[in-house]
Amino acid sequence: MHPNTEKALVVLSGGQDSTTCLYWAIRKFGKDNVTAVTFDYGQRHHIELACAEIIAAMAGVQQTVLPIDTFAAIGGNALTDASITPQTETSESGAALPNTFVPGRNLIFLTFAAALAYTKGIQHLVTGVAQTDYSGYPDCRENTLKALELALRLGMDAPICLHAPLMYMTKAETVVLAQEVGAMEALAYSHTCYNGEVPPCGVCDSCRLRARGFAEAGVADPLVTRTARS
Amino acid sequence: MHPNTEKALVVLSGGQDSTTCLYWAIRKFGKDNVTAVTFDYGQRHHIELACAEIIAAMAGVQQTVLPIDTFAAIGGNALTDASITPQTETSESGAALPNTFVPGRNLIFLTFAAALAYTKGIQHLVTGVAQTDYSGYPDCRENTLKALELALRLGMDAPICLHAPLMYMTKAETVVLAQEVGAMEALAYSHTCYNGEVPPCGVCDSCRLRARGFAEAGVADPLVTRTARS
Repeated sequence: MHPNTEKALVVLSGGQDSTTCLYWAIRKFGKDNVTAVTFDYGQRHHIELACAEIIAAMAGVQQTVLPIDTFAAIGGNALTDASITPQTETSESGAALPNTFVPGRNLIFLTFAAALAYTKGIQHLVTGVAQTDYSGYPDCRENTLKALELALRLGMDAPICLHAPLMYMTKAETVVLAQEVGAMEALAYSHTCYNGEVPPCGVCDSCRLRARGFAEAGVADPLVTRTARS
Repeated sequence: MHPNTEKALVVLSGGQDSTTCLYWAIRKFGKDNVTAVTFDYGQRHHIELACAEIIAAMAGVQQTVLPIDTFAAIGGNALTDASITPQTETSESGAALPNTFVPGRNLIFLTFAAALAYTKGIQHLVTGVAQTDYSGYPDCRENTLKALELALRLGMDAPICLHAPLMYMTKAETVVLAQEVGAMEALAYSHTCYNGEVPPCGVCDSCRLRARGFAEAGVADPLVTRTARS
């Protein structure tokens, strides 16, 4: 069914975008050629890890969980530092970035993913980052990924390809893609809420962005449907 | 004395090259503007960490030690996997890289260093990597560093500058530089031996490369002098 025998490694956070990308990769490369890597980096909400594990199992792909203790040691951001409250609005101080910014987080994730891929003879890396997610994270931009891809190719002397299929999609378009690649069932177990709530809080930036995407696509969010308070 | 008020962060492993670069940075940026970062990544020889700590203290600069538990979890190389013996000769299998290659190690070190620098408002990163160290690590090459610098600048939206003052120097030239920048006293406490021995074993690739450099420069290695068996 899948003549493509090249292998792909998907960076799976347990969120909406990476879950959609996992199913995108399965369609593109074939299930037997896809594996997932999830990072346990001291994120505020450990529930993301449980979600990623469930989703990998639902998709039927092998998952590697890699620890990263370094971000917590660097400190100073709301995602890994329990003493800092996540901002749900743009900073009043006019700061260019939300305090959920972990400097270089995606650079690190993709570089460790490339290192893992290298040891397994995998050439393709898939990430759910998107320029259109409005959060202003500079390491989600296409030009950052292109520069990183070059650094990885040169630095590992391997023909690594970075795929970011959602890069220029709106959230509504990613919902449509999720339907096309069969990700909706798994999305019922994905995690988005910055406040770590299940059912999702519905008021944090992440919840509102997700809700707007499903609304614009005219599709019910299977996570909301599954966890609706009865 | 030092009109330059820009700050620099030196990646200090405790080895010969990074020790030389620490003193190079002190000359260039002024001691008060230089700090060091050392990675505790599960390296085979914990003595490197002790050396780095001593050298930072001798130089009078603040040092941050950051843990990285991820390489050991990825596994499969001789530097972090105690079950694999380091090769002291080129692989008989014709493998292009020695089995001490940790895929992407310098990419990760520099990216975490950039993240730390970002949180501290530091713009300049200094690394001791060199194309001329003959070990064939692709992430020590100038083109890799240039691509990585671009990825870091774009990914962190910060004017990060990577400095690799030893890039095109022979080992003998780095010895001469070490003399010029006042690093010789600290080099007596630097660690090079892949076998982790003090006094250095003298037969591993690293020891031989270091010895050749000092010999070609016509300078006695202060480490050998300090630790000579009496």
